[in-house]
Amino acid sequence: MPKDICLAVDAMGGDFGPEINIPGSLAAARETGVRLILVGDEPSIRKELDRHAHADVRFEIVHTTQVAGMAEKPSDVLRRKKDSSMQVAFRLVREGRAHGVVTAGNSGAALACGMFILGRISGVDRPALASIMPTLKKPIVLIDVGANADCKPYNLVQFGLMAEVLARCVLDIPSPKVGILSIGEEEGKGNSLTKDAFTLLKGSSLNFVGNVEGRDVFTGETDVIVCDGFVGNVALKLSEGLGSALASMLKTELKKSIWSRLGTLIALPAFKRFAKKIDYAEYGGAPILGLNGIAIVCHGKSNARAITTALQQAAIFVEKKANDYLVEGLHANTELSLFSRTGKASALKQEASGL
Amino acid sequence: MPKDICLAVDAMGGDFGPEINIPGSLAAARETGVRLILVGDEPSIRKELDRHAHADVRFEIVHTTQVAGMAEKPSDVLRRKKDSSMQVAFRLVREGRAHGVVTAGNSGAALACGMFILGRISGVDRPALASIMPTLKKPIVLIDVGANADCKPYNLVQFGLMAEVLARCVLDIPSPKVGILSIGEEEGKGNSLTKDAFTLLKGSSLNFVGNVEGRDVFTGETDVIVCDGFVGNVALKLSEGLGSALASMLKTELKKSIWSRLGTLIALPAFKRFAKKIDYAEYGGAPILGLNGIAIVCHGKSNARAITTALQQAAIFVEKKANDYLVEGLHANTELSLFSRTGKASALKQEASGL
Repeated sequence: MPKDICLAVDAMGGDFGPEINIPGSLAAARETGVRLILVGDEPSIRKELDRHAHADVRFEIVHTTQVAGMAEKPSDVLRRKKDSSMQVAFRLVREGRAHGVVTAGNSGAALACGMFILGRISGVDRPALASIMPTLKKPIVLIDVGANADCKPYNLVQFGLMAEVLARCVLDIPSPKVGILSIGEEEGKGNSLTKDAFTLLKGSSLNFVGNVEGRDVFTGETDVIVCDGFVGNVALKLSEGLGSALASMLKTELKKSIWSRLGTLIALPAFKRFAKKIDYAEYGGAPILGLNGIAIVCHGKSNARAITTALQQAAIFVEKKANDYLVEGLHANTELSLFSRTGKASALKQEASGL
Repeated sequence: MPKDICLAVDAMGGDFGPEINIPGSLAAARETGVRLILVGDEPSIRKELDRHAHADVRFEIVHTTQVAGMAEKPSDVLRRKKDSSMQVAFRLVREGRAHGVVTAGNSGAALACGMFILGRISGVDRPALASIMPTLKKPIVLIDVGANADCKPYNLVQFGLMAEVLARCVLDIPSPKVGILSIGEEEGKGNSLTKDAFTLLKGSSLNFVGNVEGRDVFTGETDVIVCDGFVGNVALKLSEGLGSALASMLKTELKKSIWSRLGTLIALPAFKRFAKKIDYAEYGGAPILGLNGIAIVCHGKSNARAITTALQQAAIFVEKKANDYLVEGLHANTELSLFSRTGKASALKQEASGL
C-alpha cells in the first residue's frame, strides 16, 4: 500500500462517535500506513487519542463545531450543518486534501453530502450504496441497499456497471457475474422494473447471468446482485435481523440444560470462528458508488473493527483507482449515456428518497 | 374440530407427489378428524395408501389424468390441464364437495385456479399469498409473498385487512398490530408505494402501527406485515436461503475438530429443539387470501409434515369461518369498496404477474 494515501474520518459519526472512530482509524492507519485526517470536536478527539497509542500513526485533526444527527433530515444537515464533521470531511475530499472519506453517521446525510459536495461522475444518474455481503463461497456485492427507494430500469443497469468494477478491483473477481434480484429465475419473472432492467442488462457489456432468487443470494454463485434501493435495504436489514434472531433462538436452546451448556463450551472455538465469518465488521462499510470521490458509509452501530475495515477498503479503492475504472465501465456502455442525458432531474430528487 | 369438514388434496402436487401428499394427508385426517378427497392418478394414490395405515381415515379418491407441471405457465395449466389434479381439486371446492383445498404444486397455477375457478370475494381486487413466519416471540403473517409483483397502494391495504383476519382467527391474536415493510420507521420513509399505502392504512379500521424495518420483522412485535408480492417473495426466499447458509456455515465449523464434534453431540437435543422451532414444515403453507373458498399452497419441496400442518390450518380456517370474517373486515372499510369498483381489469392481469 503506498504511503501517500490520506483518508478523512468523520470522527463524530455513528452511535458512539470518537470512542469507536478513533481506535478504529488508528488501527487502520497502523495496518495500511495511510495518513488520517480526524474531523470533529478536537477535545473529544484528543481525549480518545490519549487513551490509545498513536505515536506511529500519521494524522492531523480538523476541528469542527457541529454534528449531523443520526435522525436528522439530509437536507437539514446540508443546509444547517455546514461545520458538521461529516460535511467538512466530504469537503476535504473535494478540495483534494483527502483521497476518501469514511463515516458511520446518518447514511441519508452522507449520500446528500456525496451528491452535493463531491458531485456525480459524468454518466451516473443515481449514486448507489453497495454492500459487501458474506456468502457460503465468498463475499458478493448487493447494490443498491438504500440510496434510491424508487428506481428506473436504467438505474439498475448503472448500479450493475458500477458494482462490477467494485467486484473486479476490490474483491479481485476476474469477470464478475451480474444478476438481478428477482422472484423467479426465468426471464419473464419479476416486477415491471426488473423485467425492463433484464432487457437492458442483456444488451450491456456485463457478464449478465439473469435473475437471482432470494434463496440464491447466499450461495455466492452471483458476484454482483442489483436491485432498487428499497428492496436492497429490506434485504440487507432482514438478513441482519434474521441472523440475530436465529443466534438468539439457538442461544436460548443451548442454555436450557447443563449438558447443552457443556457441549457449547467444548465447541466454543467453532462457534467463535463461525461468528467471525458472518460478522459484518469484517466486511467494512457500504461504498457510495458513482461519486467524484471515494466515500464509505458504515453502520451507525459500527464497532472499531468495522471502522478499521472500512478504512482499509477505502485505501484499496484509492490505490486501485477504482473510480477511474468505474468511469471507463460506464462509458463503454453507450446506451447509458443516452439515458443519463434525461436523468438529471430525477437524480436531484434523490436526496428526499427516504433515507 | 367438527367431523364434517372435507378437504381436497392435490395428491400429485409438489416435487414429490403422492409419496409426500398421501402420508401427510392421512396424518392430518387422523389428528383432526377431517374427511379427505385425494385427487390424482388413482393407481399412484392406491400404491401410497398400501404403504400407510389408513383404516381409521375417511377418504375418497377422485381420479384425474393430468398433472400441472411445476414450471408450467399458469395460463397453460388453466387452459390445457382441465383434468389436472390441481384444477379438479379447486373445482371440488367450487362445487361445494370440499370446504378447502391444499396443494404443493406450482404456486402461480394455484393462484390462477383460485382466481378463475373459485373467484374473488367481492371487494377484493387482488388475492394475495400470506406466509406465517416464525419469529422470536410468536408466528406472524407476511403478506403478499408472491401473488402480485406490481401493486397499487390500496392493494396493500386490502392485504392488511385480509391478513388481520388470519392473525385474529387462526393465530388467535386479539387485536393484531399491522405494519408496512419499509426502509425506515418514520412516516415519510419508504418508496412511493409504501408512502401512499401508509396514508391509506392510517385511515383504515386496522390497528396500524406504521412502518416496520427489515431488521424488526423477526422480533415478532408486529403481527401482520404488508408489502407488495415482489418484496415479500424476495424477503421470504432470502430468509430461507440465509437460514440454510448459516446452518451450513455453522455445521462446517462444528465438524472441523474432534472437540467441537463432541460438543455438538452433547448439545444435540438443544440443536434439535432449535431446528424444530424454525422448521417451515411446522408453520403450514401459504393461504391464498381473498378467494371464495379456502386454498393453501405449500412449498414444492414440502415434506409430509408440512402437508399435515397445511391441512390442519385449512381445517381451522373452515371451522373458524375465517372467510366470513374476512368479508366483514373488508366491508367495514368503505374506502376499499370504492377502489375495488375500478380494480377489475388489474385483477384479471394478475395471472401473468410473474409467478
